[in-house]
Amino acid sequence: MSAGHSRSVDVTLVSEWNDGHPRPFQDSLVGEEPLEIRVGGEPLTVTMRTPGNDLELAAGFLFTEGLIQRREQILSLAAVEQGVESTARGNVVEALLDPEISLELERTRRNFFSSSSCGICGKASIDAVRRRTLQSPNASFRVSAAGLYALPDILRSSQAIFGRTGGLHAAALFRAKGEMIVLREDVGRHNAVDKVIGWALLEKRLPLSDSILLVSGRGGFEIIQKAIVAGVPVVASVSAPSSLAVRLARELRLTLVGFLRDRRFVVYAGEARIAESE
Amino acid sequence: MSAGHSRSVDVTLVSEWNDGHPRPFQDSLVGEEPLEIRVGGEPLTVTMRTPGNDLELAAGFLFTEGLIQRREQILSLAAVEQGVESTARGNVVEALLDPEISLELERTRRNFFSSSSCGICGKASIDAVRRRTLQSPNASFRVSAAGLYALPDILRSSQAIFGRTGGLHAAALFRAKGEMIVLREDVGRHNAVDKVIGWALLEKRLPLSDSILLVSGRGGFEIIQKAIVAGVPVVASVSAPSSLAVRLARELRLTLVGFLRDRRFVVYAGEARIAESE
Repeated sequence: MSAGHSRSVDVTLVSEWNDGHPRPFQDSLVGEEPLEIRVGGEPLTVTMRTPGNDLELAAGFLFTEGLIQRREQILSLAAVEQGVESTARGNVVEALLDPEISLELERTRRNFFSSSSCGICGKASIDAVRRRTLQSPNASFRVSAAGLYALPDILRSSQAIFGRTGGLHAAALFRAKGEMIVLREDVGRHNAVDKVIGWALLEKRLPLSDSILLVSGRGGFEIIQKAIVAGVPVVASVSAPSSLAVRLARELRLTLVGFLRDRRFVVYAGEARIAESE
Repeated sequence: MSAGHSRSVDVTLVSEWNDGHPRPFQDSLVGEEPLEIRVGGEPLTVTMRTPGNDLELAAGFLFTEGLIQRREQILSLAAVEQGVESTARGNVVEALLDPEISLELERTRRNFFSSSSCGICGKASIDAVRRRTLQSPNASFRVSAAGLYALPDILRSSQAIFGRTGGLHAAALFRAKGEMIVLREDVGRHNAVDKVIGWALLEKRLPLSDSILLVSGRGGFEIIQKAIVAGVPVVASVSAPSSLAVRLARELRLTLVGFLRDRRFVVYAGEARIAESE
């Protein structure tokens, strides 16, 4: 593979086949590398992600998975360069958390490995998100239908990596009037959302009670879960949600919009926050 | 939410907004529920999946994650109904493995929690797949460009759930001449691939050295990894691959095709297996 421009994009020679015959060209690929998140020196998880905004990704993961509730519980957060092999540099993030959290983390691990099956159903999954949620999504937040229609074009025109690679997901926060606050891209849908929420956590902007979260791709349970934990009142996606995502949004009073494209969308939950156009 | 037709599809009342105004309609949502896979009575993992073909999913997961290498190492595999709460029934699969595997599993867990950072880079990720691969992908397998062009239409017209929900991923195996062997759908891309490979494992059809694997969505590292472990020589996707997926395919001599749609595709690796059209 030839040298790339950065770690988030990699340029390489490939063949395009049109009507049965090949033609060589230089293509840009979205970067993908493993990231290990460590807490207190112990590995917590490894995720395949697009390099960039790794501290946000780690912070967002710790928050949306319920390990921390506040910015102050992260005592330090840094990429590890010392004591790791040169090839792994840039792929390890170390968090030092409030000592109380470390105890909780140990309990979570123990509970997982001795988990009983009563946690394995849609209802239990929803109850787990409910326990992790700091407050109900803002009931007085409003967005207009026209405002929603405009968001996908803003997202797409702002995607720096997608335009070159066609190969990754985006998540972005918008204000009610359509102003984009932050956009993050990643080869993994969940990672793009964790980067956005991690950014908000590190910037002390949580809960996101006056924001719309727009995601490319599908609106599955785990995306909605992350939005609810961060206090987002409206989640929109350009594609379909799942049954459990819709149940979760309805029970926890989130507005969930799907198939947002071409001046059309479908409202699956929380329609009261959407105002008709004149 | 109103009653669904089955656990893989759920029908509910939603609002469609066209040009600023709502109109109610009945929509079909893709089903999503957690599945817990247990080995020897201990929980191994929980994945959010579309109910259906759960034994294949569990078998495919065990195989593509490298816990087992052969069908015979699964002594028993069954949905757990006894001793679990009624809401969790159908969401727990229990595998009993060869006792040698259980020891290996324990070592894997220990190694993970004491993992050193030398495993956290693209090269180490590729090396891990190499160790898990039984044999190199079949070098003499051939497919024509015209044959590849035809596959997405066959896939789409065979997708039972997608047509009703628009909300899920598919993976399918084809013979070189374009005959579809098996198709599986799931809300999660990896799960669709694990169901297909799990089907092949349970049917004793591994390695898949004369098959093409077609996946909807993107070709990331983990999809290519699963294909290589199963011995598939050609993987095609309708969208973009990642940089690490391409590196993996090139180093382990897999043919990787992306952007397969509208009588066009891009070859990222292993072009020798593709024949030009007359």
